[in-house]
Amino acid sequence: MKLCIFAKDRIGAISDSSVTDITDLVPQPYRDDPGMAMNVLIRNWANVRQEISRALSSLPKLPLDSVQLSAPVCAPPHVFAAPANYRKHIGELGAQAVTKTTRTAREQGFFLKAPGSITGMAEGITLPDRPGRRFDHESELAVIIGTGGKNIPRREALSHVFGYSCLVDLTMRIEPGTHEEERSMRKSFSTFTPIGPWIVTADEIPQPQGLSNRLWVNGQLKQQANTAEMIVAVDELIELVSGVIELSPGDVIASGTPEGVGPVVKGDSVEIEIEKIGRMTLQVR
Amino acid sequence: MKLCIFAKDRIGAISDSSVTDITDLVPQPYRDDPGMAMNVLIRNWANVRQEISRALSSLPKLPLDSVQLSAPVCAPPHVFAAPANYRKHIGELGAQAVTKTTRTAREQGFFLKAPGSITGMAEGITLPDRPGRRFDHESELAVIIGTGGKNIPRREALSHVFGYSCLVDLTMRIEPGTHEEERSMRKSFSTFTPIGPWIVTADEIPQPQGLSNRLWVNGQLKQQANTAEMIVAVDELIELVSGVIELSPGDVIASGTPEGVGPVVKGDSVEIEIEKIGRMTLQVR
Repeated sequence: MKLCIFAKDRIGAISDSSVTDITDLVPQPYRDDPGMAMNVLIRNWANVRQEISRALSSLPKLPLDSVQLSAPVCAPPHVFAAPANYRKHIGELGAQAVTKTTRTAREQGFFLKAPGSITGMAEGITLPDRPGRRFDHESELAVIIGTGGKNIPRREALSHVFGYSCLVDLTMRIEPGTHEEERSMRKSFSTFTPIGPWIVTADEIPQPQGLSNRLWVNGQLKQQANTAEMIVAVDELIELVSGVIELSPGDVIASGTPEGVGPVVKGDSVEIEIEKIGRMTLQVR
Repeated sequence: MKLCIFAKDRIGAISDSSVTDITDLVPQPYRDDPGMAMNVLIRNWANVRQEISRALSSLPKLPLDSVQLSAPVCAPPHVFAAPANYRKHIGELGAQAVTKTTRTAREQGFFLKAPGSITGMAEGITLPDRPGRRFDHESELAVIIGTGGKNIPRREALSHVFGYSCLVDLTMRIEPGTHEEERSMRKSFSTFTPIGPWIVTADEIPQPQGLSNRLWVNGQLKQQANTAEMIVAVDELIELVSGVIELSPGDVIASGTPEGVGPVVKGDSVEIEIEKIGRMTLQVR
């Protein structure tokens, strides 16, 4: 199933090119808060999935292209992120690299992004007013946790995934010697974590390695890779993060970016597409 | 007023040496989730404060020493933290320093800790099984945001504070050349963010600079400073963080640690006391 948030605070299920409003099927009392409502839906998915599937045929549908889509998860407890997870990306930025060493996520662990930096297609990206600074796009597969847990072994990890989405990890680059702010801050400006266009539930993507991951700026292809090229695969990332802290339903893991990272400026249009998920277009303001 | 979470999921108001259960005065429907309930209480404080004050005299009281206190905020949207904010702390750890440069929070900005790493007196600290690694205590004043906002100017910042608490920022040290994990991971292990023993609302602490900040391990004084020695004061920290991302009610800002940072091991007892707030004792397991 494809799940979205549309018209600011409605929960939707997408089939073909239409959206069904399923907000009233979300367990009360969180219906007025789309971020909490989606977290509750994820937490209760095993119980409500059948009811939602049955209801889909009888509820009214809207054309997908008539609605504004926001981030399908907008208030996760955490956004964990892998710092360097496609071999070709490591080192490509030289002195400005966020990742200064040749260490991978396996050695570096994860960093955090602020959940408050999440944005969606409807809202787009707003660059902060930091004259002279460079802001880069990073194209990533987002993993949304369904069943939480601590010390989840790799072999069981994929059963803890609720679904997948596209995620652009925006980053303010360091300027060696002059500006060397904390990574988690440079990646947590408002609107620096676009997610969307929707969540594809894990039953439709039993194997998250092997998906093409592409990003365009103004129609020009900038990043092109396959999730099979990840150094630390999704199951190992879940093992790694849950070995440090208990994962909760709705938590997001950004699984790292391939080569081709580059700057975005005001007026740009950024598109990300991941195979079996979909395409999200973001305006940069 | 002093507000706490006790008996796992009850919201309490503390006066003298007794606790009044005010859970039923928290706006519905979050009463079954103490973290969300406290966030909602903070968000609606202006509306419910009078009612709570009036009700205190008529509600039954429990002796404070008969209840188990958990962290008074346990599901904040974010935990922001200042990386180096007392001049004497900077550089004291040499090659193992989390803060490698002489830059302060003003230049480095903030880092993030995982809200899921929060713990309280009742639960204590559990060190992870990472043989050969060192885990350090950092004694900090926690600022809890009441009224959110973006780009909050320094002169208005303290009016956005809901209250203050004590916070121990636990950290797994890097081992240069062998273990150099991401800072936000090294500080986000489960139970690595003890907060407590309660929140003191901001009306009781109109000026957060000028409070003694002390920490003991097994009764031996390890850290002793005054919040007046902060490089970036609380009002400027709020300006700094809100200049990057919108602050939300319940957000926590850990304001940095003074000198005296040192290791804790299993079996230790860690005590933190900040003037006008109180003392929290934590067992290390």
